[in-house]
Amino acid sequence: MSSDPYFHPVSGFDLPRFAGVPTFMRLPHLAPDHPRFGDVQIGLVGVPWDSGTTNRPGPRHGPRQLRDASTMIRAQNGITGLRPFERVNCADLGDVGPNPADIQDSMTRITAFYEQLVQEGIRPLTAGGDHLTSLPVLRALARQRPVGMIHFDSHTDLFHSYFGGTLYTHGTPFRRAVEEGLLDPKRVVQIGIRGTAYDMEDRDFAKSVGIRIIPIEEYFARGYADVMAEARAIVGSDPTYISYDIDFVDPAFAPGTGTPEIGGPNSFEALAVVRELAGLNIVGADMVEVSPPFDATGATAYLGVSVMFELLCAMVSD
Amino acid sequence: MSSDPYFHPVSGFDLPRFAGVPTFMRLPHLAPDHPRFGDVQIGLVGVPWDSGTTNRPGPRHGPRQLRDASTMIRAQNGITGLRPFERVNCADLGDVGPNPADIQDSMTRITAFYEQLVQEGIRPLTAGGDHLTSLPVLRALARQRPVGMIHFDSHTDLFHSYFGGTLYTHGTPFRRAVEEGLLDPKRVVQIGIRGTAYDMEDRDFAKSVGIRIIPIEEYFARGYADVMAEARAIVGSDPTYISYDIDFVDPAFAPGTGTPEIGGPNSFEALAVVRELAGLNIVGADMVEVSPPFDATGATAYLGVSVMFELLCAMVSD
Amino acid sequence: MSSDPYFHPVSGFDLPRFAGVPTFMRLPHLAPDHPRFGDVQIGLVGVPWDSGTTNRPGPRHGPRQLRDASTMIRAQNGITGLRPFERVNCADLGDVGPNPADIQDSMTRITAFYEQLVQEGIRPLTAGGDHLTSLPVLRALARQRPVGMIHFDSHTDLFHSYFGGTLYTHGTPFRRAVEEGLLDPKRVVQIGIRGTAYDMEDRDFAKSVGIRIIPIEEYFARGYADVMAEARAIVGSDPTYISYDIDFVDPAFAPGTGTPEIGGPNSFEALAVVRELAGLNIVGADMVEVSPPFDATGATAYLGVSVMFELLCAMVSD
Amino acid sequence: MSSDPYFHPVSGFDLPRFAGVPTFMRLPHLAPDHPRFGDVQIGLVGVPWDSGTTNRPGPRHGPRQLRDASTMIRAQNGITGLRPFERVNCADLGDVGPNPADIQDSMTRITAFYEQLVQEGIRPLTAGGDHLTSLPVLRALARQRPVGMIHFDSHTDLFHSYFGGTLYTHGTPFRRAVEEGLLDPKRVVQIGIRGTAYDMEDRDFAKSVGIRIIPIEEYFARGYADVMAEARAIVGSDPTYISYDIDFVDPAFAPGTGTPEIGGPNSFEALAVVRELAGLNIVGADMVEVSPPFDATGATAYLGVSVMFELLCAMVSD
Amino acid sequence: MSSDPYFHPVSGFDLPRFAGVPTFMRLPHLAPDHPRFGDVQIGLVGVPWDSGTTNRPGPRHGPRQLRDASTMIRAQNGITGLRPFERVNCADLGDVGPNPADIQDSMTRITAFYEQLVQEGIRPLTAGGDHLTSLPVLRALARQRPVGMIHFDSHTDLFHSYFGGTLYTHGTPFRRAVEEGLLDPKRVVQIGIRGTAYDMEDRDFAKSVGIRIIPIEEYFARGYADVMAEARAIVGSDPTYISYDIDFVDPAFAPGTGTPEIGGPNSFEALAVVRELAGLNIVGADMVEVSPPFDATGATAYLGVSVMFELLCAMVSD
Amino acid sequence: MSSDPYFHPVSGFDLPRFAGVPTFMRLPHLAPDHPRFGDVQIGLVGVPWDSGTTNRPGPRHGPRQLRDASTMIRAQNGITGLRPFERVNCADLGDVGPNPADIQDSMTRITAFYEQLVQEGIRPLTAGGDHLTSLPVLRALARQRPVGMIHFDSHTDLFHSYFGGTLYTHGTPFRRAVEEGLLDPKRVVQIGIRGTAYDMEDRDFAKSVGIRIIPIEEYFARGYADVMAEARAIVGSDPTYISYDIDFVDPAFAPGTGTPEIGGPNSFEALAVVRELAGLNIVGADMVEVSPPFDATGATAYLGVSVMFELLCAMVSD
Repeated sequence: MSSDPYFHPVSGFDLPRFAGVPTFMRLPHLAPDHPRFGDVQIGLVGVPWDSGTTNRPGPRHGPRQLRDASTMIRAQNGITGLRPFERVNCADLGDVGPNPADIQDSMTRITAFYEQLVQEGIRPLTAGGDHLTSLPVLRALARQRPVGMIHFDSHTDLFHSYFGGTLYTHGTPFRRAVEEGLLDPKRVVQIGIRGTAYDMEDRDFAKSVGIRIIPIEEYFARGYADVMAEARAIVGSDPTYISYDIDFVDPAFAPGTGTPEIGGPNSFEALAVVRELAGLNIVGADMVEVSPPFDATGATAYLGVSVMFELLCAMVSD
Repeated sequence: MSSDPYFHPVSGFDLPRFAGVPTFMRLPHLAPDHPRFGDVQIGLVGVPWDSGTTNRPGPRHGPRQLRDASTMIRAQNGITGLRPFERVNCADLGDVGPNPADIQDSMTRITAFYEQLVQEGIRPLTAGGDHLTSLPVLRALARQRPVGMIHFDSHTDLFHSYFGGTLYTHGTPFRRAVEEGLLDPKRVVQIGIRGTAYDMEDRDFAKSVGIRIIPIEEYFARGYADVMAEARAIVGSDPTYISYDIDFVDPAFAPGTGTPEIGGPNSFEALAVVRELAGLNIVGADMVEVSPPFDATGATAYLGVSVMFELLCAMVSD
Repeated sequence: MSSDPYFHPVSGFDLPRFAGVPTFMRLPHLAPDHPRFGDVQIGLVGVPWDSGTTNRPGPRHGPRQLRDASTMIRAQNGITGLRPFERVNCADLGDVGPNPADIQDSMTRITAFYEQLVQEGIRPLTAGGDHLTSLPVLRALARQRPVGMIHFDSHTDLFHSYFGGTLYTHGTPFRRAVEEGLLDPKRVVQIGIRGTAYDMEDRDFAKSVGIRIIPIEEYFARGYADVMAEARAIVGSDPTYISYDIDFVDPAFAPGTGTPEIGGPNSFEALAVVRELAGLNIVGADMVEVSPPFDATGATAYLGVSVMFELLCAMVSD
Repeated sequence: MSSDPYFHPVSGFDLPRFAGVPTFMRLPHLAPDHPRFGDVQIGLVGVPWDSGTTNRPGPRHGPRQLRDASTMIRAQNGITGLRPFERVNCADLGDVGPNPADIQDSMTRITAFYEQLVQEGIRPLTAGGDHLTSLPVLRALARQRPVGMIHFDSHTDLFHSYFGGTLYTHGTPFRRAVEEGLLDPKRVVQIGIRGTAYDMEDRDFAKSVGIRIIPIEEYFARGYADVMAEARAIVGSDPTYISYDIDFVDPAFAPGTGTPEIGGPNSFEALAVVRELAGLNIVGADMVEVSPPFDATGATAYLGVSVMFELLCAMVSD
Repeated sequence: MSSDPYFHPVSGFDLPRFAGVPTFMRLPHLAPDHPRFGDVQIGLVGVPWDSGTTNRPGPRHGPRQLRDASTMIRAQNGITGLRPFERVNCADLGDVGPNPADIQDSMTRITAFYEQLVQEGIRPLTAGGDHLTSLPVLRALARQRPVGMIHFDSHTDLFHSYFGGTLYTHGTPFRRAVEEGLLDPKRVVQIGIRGTAYDMEDRDFAKSVGIRIIPIEEYFARGYADVMAEARAIVGSDPTYISYDIDFVDPAFAPGTGTPEIGGPNSFEALAVVRELAGLNIVGADMVEVSPPFDATGATAYLGVSVMFELLCAMVSD
Repeated sequence: MSSDPYFHPVSGFDLPRFAGVPTFMRLPHLAPDHPRFGDVQIGLVGVPWDSGTTNRPGPRHGPRQLRDASTMIRAQNGITGLRPFERVNCADLGDVGPNPADIQDSMTRITAFYEQLVQEGIRPLTAGGDHLTSLPVLRALARQRPVGMIHFDSHTDLFHSYFGGTLYTHGTPFRRAVEEGLLDPKRVVQIGIRGTAYDMEDRDFAKSVGIRIIPIEEYFARGYADVMAEARAIVGSDPTYISYDIDFVDPAFAPGTGTPEIGGPNSFEALAVVRELAGLNIVGADMVEVSPPFDATGATAYLGVSVMFELLCAMVSD
């Protein structure tokens, strides 16, 4: 497997990393009408949208800050030695333009964009956006049949509704996804769940449909390698989606998010869990809830793109 | 005119200003079911809502930060000597709880709350929230007949729609208010308008209905006193609403807002223009678009509550 | 054991967490003259006072920021499932008003306030304030007989005096408390001590009176569970006070404090050590040295209230 | 005069302003090998370079932050009504890649890039970079004959050398430019000079070659309109370069710069002086010394791009 | 008048301004036991003390940050051309060590230090500290006979007491100074007073003893030159102290202070009013209330030392 | 071994830690012409220089911020009980003045300064500066014969060149040092290497000359004690240099650096690895790449000086 040099990122040895228009990982930027769009194999897509946020907004600014931080990423995985950009054609496909004042309209736009990718055979690596982003993406990716999911997060995002019946928020996407048949709950595992809770409604639902929740105290007690072995077993070799909420990571390492929960994994494990995904059948992945207004130093975005690079490596590993 | 001591704020000579649960200006906090609710004459209300924001969100956090900063406000106007809390019964009436993921539901909730105030004869001084806040407030205050408005802002907020037809955003409230008969456009004046523009659609509408726009270059050329004399003449002695967008003020003085425009008035004039409102027939006032996530030092909130104190003085002056 | 719904916090499902006047954990705010004051079982009290600080001041702003952050806390402990607000009547009792320019006057005021709580049978959970706060609190709680103490900190706060004989500073409270017979030194354990030292005067004193110090290198070598087992054994089933200085936690997780010491526990252990207190006879607890001016992002306050919630759970566990 | 729609920026009514890969003013990004490069009339170019900085570095990050902030700029000048993008073909030509560790190599690279523009007939609007940036740019623009210059700054940048003979720093570019025959000193005016001084060496040089310096106290005493009338007279109708150091503006409005000097113009005048350039024969312009590491809130970059928009308007006015 | 080169500051042309141990204005640092202490004519002294602060503390960190910022100051006044360090022997005399937990002890220490200066004939230029600093300084300087004072501030600091009788706070120093016969109230003028007020107690006292207050609205209406002419007339040619509270300046220019009041002078006037002091008989001067914890960017300290440089120029002008 | 009290630091019990001109660890400041210069045994030296930085500059501000933070350091090692200042004469020797605009000139100046130290028998503990700083220092220290090195870092800094042949950058110092015979590669160990990579050129070079690289995944797998035992064995008892790049530590603990790499050690291990150096033959040590502009809260500088104190302890241990 070998990629077209057209799709290789610019090296920091040639152009300093602070220079240049910031695309994801210094890849070429291709809009859907670009003549080489069809040659893309993995598309990095921004979804600057946070209208589903019930608490502190900000992830609409995520894609831009993630692009900025991503110019710090180099070509090779320091631990595995993998050079993903030389394996498959990667490109920055730009942002899906949401309608910040209309949730339904935004979801329609997002799903439409991802259906284009599905048609072209492009696998998406998404930079959100709040966690509601995953729902319209899954509507495109799982239209044929439900997918499995490995979900890193401190929250289940499985609630039924908020504020007296509001169905579409960043706390409900996977409840909807299960209801809509986009996720096969028996092939879904949620890792890192923690924090104070409203009630057990989300966990009761998980249990009722067969979603496996691994709370943080179990995660730490078993160690990440053991947990990830179970996760791989749960999703098996069928098509699987990876959803990574930055608040999975402890807020000392990733402060820039709207609903942080203390007591999470450190940055070494933030990457290590993703390396354990190598070899899975990944149809798409997302990094969500990076919120620049709460990320005073840019540390969260940098951690976010470091995770995205590992996700990319997982997507191109055999 | 003399107020009930029950409604007097706590003095910083007795309790240090950094101490205590932060209510607006250290006033008593009364929910609508409080036995003394009916005795309130001016109610300070928070509307923590920014779902109409087309650009950078954050004003949902405004009321809390404004309350925090407001404990720096003392009892007496330094220039006029007025002691507003001794004139009328003022209270913090808490926040209207919005639905961050549903604009229509939020507007319904806000209008309902303000209709209660109208019924009780309480005049509201509102802390937003983005500028769409003014629309559901006006729906309660102007239900009987259209009101006039003096509007401090760098934007007209008179656009028809955004993103292909979305009618309810923070860029459209006064277009809707005119259409709904809540504002008498001939008695509306907008002061401080500036910045780059999309097009002339908003200004053409203003002209077509008789709204008077005073752009910043005219404002500086004439001086604030002359401008305010014209503004007073435009609204006359009939019921008038005051809407104060913090981005009226230059962002060096008020950085914490979502759509700043450089080249505005300084903080001395930010207060001085409000003092010129004394004697008008003010049915309500608001301070909107204070956005704490973009207000690293709290300076904007402090300026905002200083303006709110002047608005309060204007509302109680004869 | 079941509480009165009057004392239940507002849910974030009903009112968004950024909305409302911020009381501790969204509990009702009751001043001592409130008719239901006598029904309170655990009172959350702020002591906005830092006049005893020898280094960088700021904890006088602690209670306000802790209240603000505390609206992120939900009703249920994510790990134990405990719902403390449904077990006992909890309330925000406001702040004790200190005299920032007079240490003795402030201590008198604080002790007087806590004596009222003792009389009413209200157990206090205090938000400081610098560590000198614990002394006037203990003067009220331990008037009858000395109490034991589990003390989380990076410093012993056992020095004799500063600056040529000054007895009352945040580095001396527990030296005074032992001298005044408020603490039974044989039932005192200090956990997490670290950092560079002036000399051994404090440790020599501890040894001479029987206070057990567990320095950080021992803490990490043994693990927190083992350390906490010893701590429980030291205080036994007699009345015990819990004092938690936020600088116990590593400053990457809790930067907002005046005298940070690197090399401390992470946020998972910051909570875990408190969960090990369940079942002790806790007469009161405090969270001190949270200093908002050095807490640029609010992370420290959020960690602080998360610990306070665990302390509350420990206080209501059987 | 009418431009090709290919070169029009994306509207915030269509794509929210926080969305999309950030190019200057949302213009198309064209590298020199782009087929439409030759159609560009005004090129916005970044020079991310600060190796000439003698004090606090940072302007190498300027172009990226200026691009980010520039997505807030709309299509029309609010005061003059001019729509520059509809007049001439504008594009983002990317960054010139400097060599951060070699000043001479960087200057060679920069001059080479701008010579390409001169050959293509593209007028440059540069985003620096520290003030040494202007020298290699002038080497390309003034190769045929010396140009005049209107220079907004708090410093003259006319020193002979630093640190015992170092000739190329951000404090010496215009001394070199005069020596190299790139500037006609009789047609050079420097406006806003202020701050404490090392000595009079720079001013003596200015006097000796006929450069006109207008210090800040004269600027304020006469008013900006009168000063700009003199400036226009000095440069006349011959080719003129505009160099705008962001530290011309008072640091309350533009804190993000390496050598701020208090007591400067406010943001209204920061724009107004540029509007007075309309009609001049402008061969190129730059905005330098924007230093994001010292621009905690992004305010300086936003002011910087607002000035760049005015510079663009001046460049396309008749 | 010509100074000893031993007392000249290091030039930024020789040692970059960011280098070196930061003394005030890069002057030599001399402790009282230094052999050349007696040769000093003007001593720059830090008083890192804020125990008198009733609101937000922090000025104890002022001297250090002012020293840091002061390395940006060069040798020559940009407007007058004066080179103060070549006129008189200036030195950094270090900090007076306060006792942060004992106000009376601290005042004793400060007065003792300044009595040493008086004995040696050294005129002090003080960097505070909160405004209570001025009292122990005046006790040394005015022991022989009362002095006059020009006082730049937004507050009068003339209150009788706080918190039920506390006499020594940063809101009371000049009340005490008048009572103690240190100030001749007929030769005292306070400029820039503004903000909301507790009551009129301070102003009534001023009137009763003949202190002239020039509130900010009068200041702006008359212009600074006219106001300063009156100020010079009030103090005449007798010994005069200059006290400059940084909150005189608008908080957009000087945010780093504990009790900001919006609506003040800009940075140009912040310096200009000091230049008007040339020729007065200045026995000492202070810059107080610079509070680094509230000065996120260092802008306030930089403005503060810029004012200190102008104060120094005023002290050495004939 | 016992030191002269002249070289003891000022205690925080006598002078509060926020007071005084900030020298390294409150030691006396001695320039080379000071009469007691020759009595110094360990000299703390600042090298405020970052011209070799290929990415984000800032370490030129390191020494000043490290001095400021160092006043928090007390006299005694909390874990070992060692009191280094009582063992050997330590002093702050000031900063080496670099030429920010000339790399070769700066290296010459630095080497000349350190040759003076070598001549006087003073061992240096350096505060950088970017990592190129180590090269001119080693040129002085290793002139006689190559030294060994224990190098804590996330990068090898062993690249051949950048930007088409530039040899002297912060990514190349140890390549040059090996080439110049300053380091004995067989006695060099690099610990903590991680992050994405350009290519394997640096690692291939290391292998070819016998440098031992311990990447972070090996470091965590083995534990720090085991790793450090190997490191000690590699350097043995011959002269050894210690180079500590702050980016060895995870950026959650040390954000203020130009090229952070996530997934590193925490602050406890940051110190613990240095304690393992006790007894080695240390000829000098450095702490580099602390970059204040990216260290919003000062946390990095505080960690940096805490490591410097441990380095000092290692240098004086037997």
